[in-house]
Amino acid sequence: MRLTSEQRLDDGVLESEFTLGEIPGTLWTPGSAAPVPLVLMAHNNGLPRKDPRLVARARHTAAAGYAVATIDAAGCGDRPRSAADERIRAELRRAVQAGEPVDEILESLVGPLVERAVPEWRTALDALLALPGIGGPVGYSGWAALGIRLAVAEPRIAAAGFFAGGYVPHAQREEARQVTVPLLFLLQWDDEGNPRQRALDLFDAFGSERKTLHANLGGHVGTPWFEVEDGCRFYDRHLR
Amino acid sequence: MRLTSEQRLDDGVLESEFTLGEIPGTLWTPGSAAPVPLVLMAHNNGLPRKDPRLVARARHTAAAGYAVATIDAAGCGDRPRSAADERIRAELRRAVQAGEPVDEILESLVGPLVERAVPEWRTALDALLALPGIGGPVGYSGWAALGIRLAVAEPRIAAAGFFAGGYVPHAQREEARQVTVPLLFLLQWDDEGNPRQRALDLFDAFGSERKTLHANLGGHVGTPWFEVEDGCRFYDRHLR
Repeated sequence: MRLTSEQRLDDGVLESEFTLGEIPGTLWTPGSAAPVPLVLMAHNNGLPRKDPRLVARARHTAAAGYAVATIDAAGCGDRPRSAADERIRAELRRAVQAGEPVDEILESLVGPLVERAVPEWRTALDALLALPGIGGPVGYSGWAALGIRLAVAEPRIAAAGFFAGGYVPHAQREEARQVTVPLLFLLQWDDEGNPRQRALDLFDAFGSERKTLHANLGGHVGTPWFEVEDGCRFYDRHLR
Repeated sequence: MRLTSEQRLDDGVLESEFTLGEIPGTLWTPGSAAPVPLVLMAHNNGLPRKDPRLVARARHTAAAGYAVATIDAAGCGDRPRSAADERIRAELRRAVQAGEPVDEILESLVGPLVERAVPEWRTALDALLALPGIGGPVGYSGWAALGIRLAVAEPRIAAAGFFAGGYVPHAQREEARQVTVPLLFLLQWDDEGNPRQRALDLFDAFGSERKTLHANLGGHVGTPWFEVEDGCRFYDRHLR
């Protein structure tokens, strides 16, 4: 892991850019020197890690006493897109505009995205936990499909907050019952791209004994800010 | 309103018993002298106001800086039961034990209970807001059926937290769309006596632009304690 830049932000949080081989990432840490738990924060369907909403959530979580890390998935953010990536995204845009069903396209886009992302996040986890000041335990936040796969594959994940607003491939819907860590599942009641019943069925399927659903009125990007604060308190309950 | 006793509890909260004509009630207030908002706290289907779970929630909410008041509904708690009350409750127990459908019995039990409770709570609200140290605004907590009726009829209710675990009469399901105050709707995912889909439909029906659903795994009495704390923060957002 190579640190490429760092700056102290006005909320006291230290924002560090890093690379891990070809993978670019960002780490936010609180001002304190004592070891803090780590939260891996990923965006639905591989949106860029510099998305302002993600950054705002990450900074708030870091200011609440967590190390927060994110990386760009292959073909997303600062990473090169293959011709195949471009082709399938163009096909998705076309189908959405034409009002056609998009499940099959999303399955062929998101399924491989998750498969490629999992080993990268595990490599990042190894590197992050080796840093001074990051003590664990480890939480996960955001992209549900990746989070399900990681929570099943990676015993170091101790609690997970999932956002229900992205496509969850068939394989991850199937393995949801193997997720057993404490769970906070966040749903926008009128999410344009995510059928409500499918999200409720997914919540129902998780194997966790302690799982909580938070749903708010509004569309995909309408999650109220207080849910970020609720998310921090969820981590406080399970990572402290 | 006549105060019949008061005691200072070990968390600094003052617990006062009162009567309002024939209606017995309890008021919990925080230690401070400054006027605080008021939360009306009612139990599903008219359980006694001295139920230990209700008392624990009320005390925590008072310690968080609210005046919290509850009264016994007619035929409940410390109030005399009529022969008709006894008859219908016996019929309900018999039907539950026999595994028969209970919707009609609940409708004939809870419908009149709500109708009788509304004017009593409005009278209590008048008396409570006249007390020194209670400044408003007013929130509501608990029994959904009564809360729907009150939130529609009573413009002083500024925010409402409803527990989805009780029977909601047809009239209140119909008028849910007239509820427009900010709403926190609390649901136990596996509530034995309350069909999940009916509760989700009720959440969907509320007219409020700001409404949040919290659902937790488990049965009717399994609500995790942190939901009481979340409830206080909900009131902090809307009553401060």
